[in-house]
Amino acid sequence: MSVTITLNQGSGGKQTHRLIENVFVKRFGIAEPLTDSALVRNRGMDIVFTTDSFVVDPLFFPGGNIGKLAVCGTVNDLAVSGAVPVCLSAAFIIEEGLPEGDLVEIVQSMADEAEKADVKIVTGDTKVVEKGKCDKLFITTSGTGTINPDQWHISIGERIKPGDKLIVNGSLGNHALAVLGARNQLSFRTPVISDCASLNHLIGKVLKISGNIHFMRDLTRGGLATVLNELAAMIGTGISINEGSVPIDDPVKGLCEMLGFDPLYLANEGKILIVARAGDESKVLDILKSDPLGKDSHIIGEIMDDRRSRVILNTVSGGKRILEMPSGIQLPRIC
Amino acid sequence: MSVTITLNQGSGGKQTHRLIENVFVKRFGIAEPLTDSALVRNRGMDIVFTTDSFVVDPLFFPGGNIGKLAVCGTVNDLAVSGAVPVCLSAAFIIEEGLPEGDLVEIVQSMADEAEKADVKIVTGDTKVVEKGKCDKLFITTSGTGTINPDQWHISIGERIKPGDKLIVNGSLGNHALAVLGARNQLSFRTPVISDCASLNHLIGKVLKISGNIHFMRDLTRGGLATVLNELAAMIGTGISINEGSVPIDDPVKGLCEMLGFDPLYLANEGKILIVARAGDESKVLDILKSDPLGKDSHIIGEIMDDRRSRVILNTVSGGKRILEMPSGIQLPRIC
Repeated sequence: MSVTITLNQGSGGKQTHRLIENVFVKRFGIAEPLTDSALVRNRGMDIVFTTDSFVVDPLFFPGGNIGKLAVCGTVNDLAVSGAVPVCLSAAFIIEEGLPEGDLVEIVQSMADEAEKADVKIVTGDTKVVEKGKCDKLFITTSGTGTINPDQWHISIGERIKPGDKLIVNGSLGNHALAVLGARNQLSFRTPVISDCASLNHLIGKVLKISGNIHFMRDLTRGGLATVLNELAAMIGTGISINEGSVPIDDPVKGLCEMLGFDPLYLANEGKILIVARAGDESKVLDILKSDPLGKDSHIIGEIMDDRRSRVILNTVSGGKRILEMPSGIQLPRIC
Repeated sequence: MSVTITLNQGSGGKQTHRLIENVFVKRFGIAEPLTDSALVRNRGMDIVFTTDSFVVDPLFFPGGNIGKLAVCGTVNDLAVSGAVPVCLSAAFIIEEGLPEGDLVEIVQSMADEAEKADVKIVTGDTKVVEKGKCDKLFITTSGTGTINPDQWHISIGERIKPGDKLIVNGSLGNHALAVLGARNQLSFRTPVISDCASLNHLIGKVLKISGNIHFMRDLTRGGLATVLNELAAMIGTGISINEGSVPIDDPVKGLCEMLGFDPLYLANEGKILIVARAGDESKVLDILKSDPLGKDSHIIGEIMDDRRSRVILNTVSGGKRILEMPSGIQLPRIC
């Protein structure tokens, strides 16, 4: 039987990693460690470069739409690597029959969000495929940014040391549940709104106030648990998280209990993990909290002095458990 | 009745232009004239940036596959603007159920073509959607390149003058007919092979031998006729083409007669239009012909001393006719 691609391989978890490692990385000769954006420093070029396809279903959801999501996602991928986003490309694959009004609304959201994030959309492409050959609209955005050499270390976390503090800029799981609630096939409506936002200005403030930011990553597909496991594997060190410190809004908690989801694995589109040197966490937290996009920031844990690449969750009930890398899919087409 | 997107709007002709102008350009504030790649020269960045989604049906065709096509297309978009392609991103939208072997073969083609073109694929993304929600595989490649300030004028043709010579690097229409022939629903097989190729090395030779290349463009979706009409509109000048000088292979001619296609409107993936200053055409032609990718190069016409933006075709029978911008679609999903 021939092996085929499954939805699991798009989930951002173990199977996605296996696919990327086995099919893409070795053939393209991409330098490891794998990050969401590439530092390009050769042949007269000194930029950060990233790309993402967006296939979110449905196109519109509380707090945003596929266009806003595409701009925020790409801006954030650049910003968490320590780069200043400068310009974006946008490529549209449109299903024949898409209402032109929907496209216009989505494009307008992209333009608005780009203006807010102070980036320019400078080039694009449009393809139309026959009805039934794609699902309404897919958007692929790529982005380029400039980076100060002082920040090169951030995306690979090479300055991380035991004792460094882990901070998130607000509550987790809202994006995934907002999208889920907007799906027509579900019988419930949630009060949850996607956190979809461009975080480059917020990140800029953090980098200005602290010269000791050791790592940042946006908590998208696969959620906090995936990012923590990727980080632990990358730096070869244990990470300790205090479950009670992880901010999760009450409606998200309630829905997760009802639906059987773990919010630590749910996608966010306006949340990042920041690793700051011990001692810098208070000023980082203060500057985050002074911004609407970081007002619910919390210190959630720290880098352990432990050579085992694993994530330990100190539960609210006083126990400890390993927070595993997700296997399989929680929610397809969340971004 | 609400207006919906039609296949015509993806054809590269008049309707595509209208869609791009009305929906994208004014909202994104993209500087006109529109070219396939953007010159980014601000905030510490000095690059050329381009993006294209590939939705070719079928994935495999004589002379290439969607992966090779994606790399060649993006490399060529950069190269015709006078840039040296440096690195590419690749984003994959995969339909659940795609044989992993097909994906591996396609990714390997991308790696091989990138090596041939001397570019690096440095970052990527993978999404998987449910069966029936996309057509096997779509790939979006973006590319960045460096550019010598001496070449900034090329993509907008600002040095074009009456008398400048138009050159193409070989026969037209092969890609479109190779893809058409490979479609299962068609009952014929053609001996035609796609011309899909990365032309950056060839273009590099041309730019080295002549400092008077006034414009270049790859002859993809919409073919030569579309590029000529776009050029005439951009420079506000007439263009004269000698039908008998336009190289078209005999099998392509035969198939076009049989199927009712005009090869001047068919997509190519390894062909470019070069506009060279009068007097430089012979040395440009010689260097093109010395390369396998340019061995069938021809001088096909010239820039007229005529303030009307139109393309005049001097037919083989001795008449003249206007070569119009295509309206509607010839072949969907050719790239």
